[in-house]
Amino acid sequence: MAIALPDTQLDFEQTVSTLRAQVDERLDQWLPLAPVQDAIASAMREGTLAHGKRIRPLLLLLTLKDLQRDTMVPRAGLDLACALEMVHAASLILDDMPCMDNAELRRGRPTIHRQFGEDVAVLGSVALLSQAFSIAASTAGTDASTGNQLVRLLSQATGAQGLVRGQFHDLREGQRARPLEAIAHTNRLKTCPLFTCAVEFAALLADTDASRMRHLKGFATELGLAFQLLDDLSDGLSTQQIGKDSGKDVGKSTVVALLGPDAARQHVEEHLARAEQHLIDAGIGDGHLAQLLEYFCARPY
Amino acid sequence: MAIALPDTQLDFEQTVSTLRAQVDERLDQWLPLAPVQDAIASAMREGTLAHGKRIRPLLLLLTLKDLQRDTMVPRAGLDLACALEMVHAASLILDDMPCMDNAELRRGRPTIHRQFGEDVAVLGSVALLSQAFSIAASTAGTDASTGNQLVRLLSQATGAQGLVRGQFHDLREGQRARPLEAIAHTNRLKTCPLFTCAVEFAALLADTDASRMRHLKGFATELGLAFQLLDDLSDGLSTQQIGKDSGKDVGKSTVVALLGPDAARQHVEEHLARAEQHLIDAGIGDGHLAQLLEYFCARPY
Repeated sequence: MAIALPDTQLDFEQTVSTLRAQVDERLDQWLPLAPVQDAIASAMREGTLAHGKRIRPLLLLLTLKDLQRDTMVPRAGLDLACALEMVHAASLILDDMPCMDNAELRRGRPTIHRQFGEDVAVLGSVALLSQAFSIAASTAGTDASTGNQLVRLLSQATGAQGLVRGQFHDLREGQRARPLEAIAHTNRLKTCPLFTCAVEFAALLADTDASRMRHLKGFATELGLAFQLLDDLSDGLSTQQIGKDSGKDVGKSTVVALLGPDAARQHVEEHLARAEQHLIDAGIGDGHLAQLLEYFCARPY
Repeated sequence: MAIALPDTQLDFEQTVSTLRAQVDERLDQWLPLAPVQDAIASAMREGTLAHGKRIRPLLLLLTLKDLQRDTMVPRAGLDLACALEMVHAASLILDDMPCMDNAELRRGRPTIHRQFGEDVAVLGSVALLSQAFSIAASTAGTDASTGNQLVRLLSQATGAQGLVRGQFHDLREGQRARPLEAIAHTNRLKTCPLFTCAVEFAALLADTDASRMRHLKGFATELGLAFQLLDDLSDGLSTQQIGKDSGKDVGKSTVVALLGPDAARQHVEEHLARAEQHLIDAGIGDGHLAQLLEYFCARPY
């Protein structure tokens, strides 16, 4: 039996599923179906288009809706959303490899190196990263200097100070017992770079002022931390429920392992509350991003 | 005893070693010495700054000298030369990994995954690629739309139609017996993308016309094919002489294996002759690139 939702929440869920469909359609154009012998193109497509929450693209597109108060999603926003999802997919492909997390399942399917071999997994990731940078440099309807800024932001989010650093911290520090702050630091490094990049992309497209940009980044950071905690909490659920290897975090020093699930849930609430305050301070406390927070709060965990 | 060289060749060798020193100095600034616990930064530095021929940076900088008839190397050229060398270094780090060529030595030292672990090798490569794209988007003294074009060219050279495709071909096709054209095709895919990108970068900085650009790309392709053949010929030399694993190509279908070294040398000569013709057609048959060809011809192989 379908649960009756309040109208606004129903509207929001429809908005979200429309946006997801638009992102998937555009990704399908960027990464067209390839002949089976083109393993690189197939791996790029499979790693990116497999069923996912598309949270980073959504974050970008919902931010853009709130800033522009516009119902239409501009092509530039959609392309940048695809670039973010490609970088995210590349990072997942690499994180799953035997020399990293050695995962067997992702999004309900065998991981890319298990489907295509480790060599193709590495090369496909490099190709996805390259394509994402090219998309950022070619964003329709933005001036050239914005294009250069988009590339630099994407580089920052991806490179030695971004995702790379987060994954390295997680690999090297995750097995040791650590104080709460150290765990929160690793979580921040792992999840926040692309969350922050998503709102920065939207803010650049909408030509937002510095103060609003600061609050949007604060929002993205808090949301990222909440998201990472929810991910850790979901590690206790079965593989079937979450579609990827579960129990991978056993023995890993996560907030959940350190404080227990109840305190972790409390932390999630605190991050979401701080995220909401940033939206209010940015003058968009009543928009789509606020609804995204409600949606997170309502999530079972 | 030093061998007496003709004046022009001596001048050229001095130019080359000055440029190499400038590239290395600038790379040292982009990739500063990191504390030992920062394995990512250390791997990025070690993978890029280890002794190398710097052929791609030289190609860019010598092309720029020929096009601009200028003795000064502009900062933009030097930065782009560094970006090319970073992408090249990232590709070598990945190619050497156990899931690819499984090499133990590179540039006279243990390969990056042997020094730092496979996880750091992968992450360091991603960070180098990201930094290279950021440099291309930030090139001093170029207008913003040139920056966008530089990023797109670098993406083309690196991604699914560039280095990635070349390495994939080499891995999957290299073990089979192939006709000469198929081998030449793989060689073209492996070596030419960054050679072509180097001359395209220089041509963009110098605002070169389309006809000259076409000949420069023809030149880069012929030089790349000659270079790959020379590399295959050197595989017969000892590890000590070439500083990387030798004999890796045993059983691999190279031009050398197919036709023997004498015919391979003949092919080198033919590629270099065609490269020279492209320089003449581009109106720079008497410049630094022509001297680079002479230098290649004089190389012992």
